[in-house]
Amino acid sequence: MNFSIDTDVLLNNILIAQKALSTKTPAPYLQGIKLEVYDNEIIVITSNSDISIKISIKDESLNIEDEGEILIPGKVFVEFIRKLDKGIVEFSVIDNSVLKITSKHTDLSLNLLNVEDYPNIDFNLKDEPIKLESKLMKSVIKQTTFATSTIENRPILTGVNIKVVDDELTAIATDSFRLSQKQIKVTKNFDKMNVVIPGKSLDELYKILELDLEEILIHLDKKSIIFEYGNILFQSRLLDGSFPETSRLIPNEFPIILKFNINDLAIAIERASLLSVKDSISSIVKLNLKANNEVEITSNSPEIGKVIEEVKPLEVEASSTLKIAFSSRYFLDALKTFDSNEVFVKFTGEIRPFIIENAKEKGLIQLILPVRTE
Amino acid sequence: MNFSIDTDVLLNNILIAQKALSTKTPAPYLQGIKLEVYDNEIIVITSNSDISIKISIKDESLNIEDEGEILIPGKVFVEFIRKLDKGIVEFSVIDNSVLKITSKHTDLSLNLLNVEDYPNIDFNLKDEPIKLESKLMKSVIKQTTFATSTIENRPILTGVNIKVVDDELTAIATDSFRLSQKQIKVTKNFDKMNVVIPGKSLDELYKILELDLEEILIHLDKKSIIFEYGNILFQSRLLDGSFPETSRLIPNEFPIILKFNINDLAIAIERASLLSVKDSISSIVKLNLKANNEVEITSNSPEIGKVIEEVKPLEVEASSTLKIAFSSRYFLDALKTFDSNEVFVKFTGEIRPFIIENAKEKGLIQLILPVRTE
Repeated sequence: MNFSIDTDVLLNNILIAQKALSTKTPAPYLQGIKLEVYDNEIIVITSNSDISIKISIKDESLNIEDEGEILIPGKVFVEFIRKLDKGIVEFSVIDNSVLKITSKHTDLSLNLLNVEDYPNIDFNLKDEPIKLESKLMKSVIKQTTFATSTIENRPILTGVNIKVVDDELTAIATDSFRLSQKQIKVTKNFDKMNVVIPGKSLDELYKILELDLEEILIHLDKKSIIFEYGNILFQSRLLDGSFPETSRLIPNEFPIILKFNINDLAIAIERASLLSVKDSISSIVKLNLKANNEVEITSNSPEIGKVIEEVKPLEVEASSTLKIAFSSRYFLDALKTFDSNEVFVKFTGEIRPFIIENAKEKGLIQLILPVRTE
Repeated sequence: MNFSIDTDVLLNNILIAQKALSTKTPAPYLQGIKLEVYDNEIIVITSNSDISIKISIKDESLNIEDEGEILIPGKVFVEFIRKLDKGIVEFSVIDNSVLKITSKHTDLSLNLLNVEDYPNIDFNLKDEPIKLESKLMKSVIKQTTFATSTIENRPILTGVNIKVVDDELTAIATDSFRLSQKQIKVTKNFDKMNVVIPGKSLDELYKILELDLEEILIHLDKKSIIFEYGNILFQSRLLDGSFPETSRLIPNEFPIILKFNINDLAIAIERASLLSVKDSISSIVKLNLKANNEVEITSNSPEIGKVIEEVKPLEVEASSTLKIAFSSRYFLDALKTFDSNEVFVKFTGEIRPFIIENAKEKGLIQLILPVRTE
């Protein structure tokens, strides 16, 4: 195996591949980056227990003299390429066991891993993938994954449920204290799909989507999901088990609807949360809608002190007053998913789940369970 | 006690005072910020076991109606003021036990600590302090504190030794594997001084010096040191015990002198260190001056591989070849203290300490002990 390539081109690609590199694994070969060198392209493959990445590099700086397959210790390889001088770097394999990397002032010999040990990873692409603006895919991830559970006792809740029926894709995440639901239109899919993707996989995908290519293709079937993004294939494992049916949890009648400026509401909740008693999850604050339609966010900790924040709602539609307590962090997390300046907070009752919505961002619902206080 | 002030003015000052706030302490009063309100100024005082800070706030936005002294829970106070809306904030004390903070939409009641518990902290200023450009003080800290020991078994080495004789100030730090020495001219001091300041205190002072005021005054006597920086007094405890006499450690005859571009040398050492065997402190690399005046930085790890980096010295003055091994981290740390592009590395022998100097930055010496290899 023998080729040369522009250092930056190689670096940009292995920095992406690195996201699927195992760091702690009983299988040392998964700490390796697999390079497959063909006559006109290089394939970079990495994999850990959650995700696998396959990147095709074709570049005018690429000069291939000899084909082959090798498995390179990943971490030291990435760090070394990151620190190389700009310009062309040459690779050649000696005795099937050592990779020689030569650049302007540098001469490195790196012991290779045994490429025969590397598992064969299928990246099965479908003929008619779902096509999506990658900006929209980023929104879906940002607006849902934060609400997945981080506790492993119900593993299915650590994932995001993706359902596709005809041309509608629904993404749902819940940790059983809150729920995020986002619905978007996509290209029509011919099979109904209902899968659960680990939240962590989607977080890694999100970072790759920073490249800002226009489009992403989703190859979805019952057993696997592959996101195709330019020259990158990103495959995630799916979670076993069935995701809870959540549609009945979302109320649809709201005797109290308040419209707020997001920033005004967020800063009031942040300040109030500084003084509040911490429970195991977060700081609890109270929202108080008074008879004169004024809204106060309050918290009270006998040891530290108490705070009353006045927030002016932009609109009030209310048949009664309201006192409701909730986790400040859940509320702030939910507010961050809205791009616009205004939200509607819709209440059914003092001990019933409430939702946050926005007129402009159709299809996005954030639901939060209130907390009972004395 | 009753006053009002512009929120940002107060915030900027308590953010500085915060650096001396205790977070973990058996004395809860040291988690407090003491405010002394006089007829035309506010004094802010904080203290932990290492440093004490006293700040005088005089500002045109300051409106004092009633004098007094209070002790405020520090952390929640700083976080709250940080999140307040811009504009004027009002403070008043109720029943000697609660601080009421009122701003546009906010109404906070904060339980006070008992100000009687707070120790009296002397900030004794001298009539004729040492006067210094604060830029120069920053250099002294940056160029020495990194070389202090972080291991507590010889506490005196966790500090920087400051000696003043006539108009010369010498700062020395060593962890017994390396040594940094910086000498500068200062205003004449009438007593000889020789003290040791905890490295951590100087690191905190360094952050405060980011304000970029022109001048700093040093009030130094045998028992304490106070840095006066604008309206801020920064006092540090001194370390007990005598600092080792280091002048004999620094060699003064150098049969081998190499001049390098700092960046070329640093990147070669960084790359070589990626492949080297790690000992308890750092990665060891070797410098090899060959008979043809070429220089190689190398490292070799039987498990990972080996690397040879070629670095072109700008000048060579050498009576022989040289092979010397050293900690890459110590060498890189030392290189970072030079502002210029070039350094001289001066060697006495393969198992003798070597020094790094620069023609332009007079007064700065970085010394490193080599490592013996097989």
